[in-house]
Amino acid sequence: MADIRLYHWEPNANSGKPMLALGEKGVKWESHYIDMLEFDQHKPEYLAINPQGTIPAMVHDGRVLTESTAIMEYVDEAFDGPPLMPADPRTRWRIRWWMKFMDQWLGPSFSMIGWSTFIGPMVRERPQEELEAAIERIPLPERRRAWRKAMYGEFAEEELAESRRRVALGVDLLEKELGKREYVASSQYSLGDINVFNSTYSLPLGQPELCNRERTPNIMRWLRTVYLRPAVQETWKIGSGRIVDRFHAMMEEWGE
Amino acid sequence: MADIRLYHWEPNANSGKPMLALGEKGVKWESHYIDMLEFDQHKPEYLAINPQGTIPAMVHDGRVLTESTAIMEYVDEAFDGPPLMPADPRTRWRIRWWMKFMDQWLGPSFSMIGWSTFIGPMVRERPQEELEAAIERIPLPERRRAWRKAMYGEFAEEELAESRRRVALGVDLLEKELGKREYVASSQYSLGDINVFNSTYSLPLGQPELCNRERTPNIMRWLRTVYLRPAVQETWKIGSGRIVDRFHAMMEEWGE
Repeated sequence: MADIRLYHWEPNANSGKPMLALGEKGVKWESHYIDMLEFDQHKPEYLAINPQGTIPAMVHDGRVLTESTAIMEYVDEAFDGPPLMPADPRTRWRIRWWMKFMDQWLGPSFSMIGWSTFIGPMVRERPQEELEAAIERIPLPERRRAWRKAMYGEFAEEELAESRRRVALGVDLLEKELGKREYVASSQYSLGDINVFNSTYSLPLGQPELCNRERTPNIMRWLRTVYLRPAVQETWKIGSGRIVDRFHAMMEEWGE
Repeated sequence: MADIRLYHWEPNANSGKPMLALGEKGVKWESHYIDMLEFDQHKPEYLAINPQGTIPAMVHDGRVLTESTAIMEYVDEAFDGPPLMPADPRTRWRIRWWMKFMDQWLGPSFSMIGWSTFIGPMVRERPQEELEAAIERIPLPERRRAWRKAMYGEFAEEELAESRRRVALGVDLLEKELGKREYVASSQYSLGDINVFNSTYSLPLGQPELCNRERTPNIMRWLRTVYLRPAVQETWKIGSGRIVDRFHAMMEEWGE
């Protein structure tokens, strides 16, 4: 058995990337749950693994890897099992274009909306001293600023509007892409699907006016296809989030 | 001969990435110079190639590729010639970590400083109607905002301070990295070096207090090694920038 420890939150966004990639490869790993709502990622035990305090981190044979998309490429290259990148260079380029688009342009907007509507309100009920102590422990100054805004609900309306603009544009681009090909950027399942699925599966629940069976039939077809993969089903058993439960219910309803 | 057209500005930053990668592979290409100081990248002729109005773009056998780092991976995979990525998955991960660090975290800070100290002042002398017309043509709203700030010198002191903080941190991290290995993230020349070199070669000229032979000997050794590569020498012949000329002069002086 491969010696792999994974430090992760719920099986979505960045944490879900190595989880799903390892699952597809059939590689077993040891789970270390990092509770983002308890700010575990900024506690000394975890900073000893990843001093930047970002999740996920993967430790393979004693060596640490960070940055979720780069970890996925590593997983695909280092382990046997079905390839998660096609052979054709142009298709590989297209997949990498999509991963870059998600990681750098669209993903941060999903995060901001998630922070402002979900994570912020959940942590805001705690004593201010506790929040301030949590902020103080964050190693990267830019993350400290972002968390402070999230905790106190201080995102500017202009920032939120820009994030909503990007999400709407991203949804339309994805719908168009999935009208051309069965999977994101490719005719076969790849790291691109894992990357995009992790940030978009909750859209029909969180933003049903943008993403629904009438408006975005291709996205809905693709979400269901990805959801039904054995690796996704297995990985999601680990999830404790309420959104995952609601997604299960929605998918069961569609099963008819 | 491969049918390749490259739409590029000077051989640095993002434009320089496919130029240097193709050079290492020994692949010939047709040059289409996009003058950023004339805002050529937002003119209809170029938007017909890349509707996002970002440079570089590469057209190979009639098909367009964008996003400079993804283009480099494509060049390495699609053409014969010396490999620009090593075989070892962990080293490949480390190179991708560095490319992500540059593209998403450090590169935008270099850009902001470059815009505020170099590009902004150069274009600001033009008639305001001309600048406004140029801004109007920019397809991506976030680029429109960034260019407006650059043209009118409206970067906030806080943004500039954050960019300077990142550059200083990035220089120290790079110096440390190049004390461990001959090249960035690897013992052999790779896409990681091309990526990082394109954004750092001008540091000893632009920020000599941060980057010089006493303070950052490893960076200086590596800059010279990369500079002396035949593909870099060949590619830089295309460059018309004053910084390239000054860099040539500095390197000749070191030749002693």
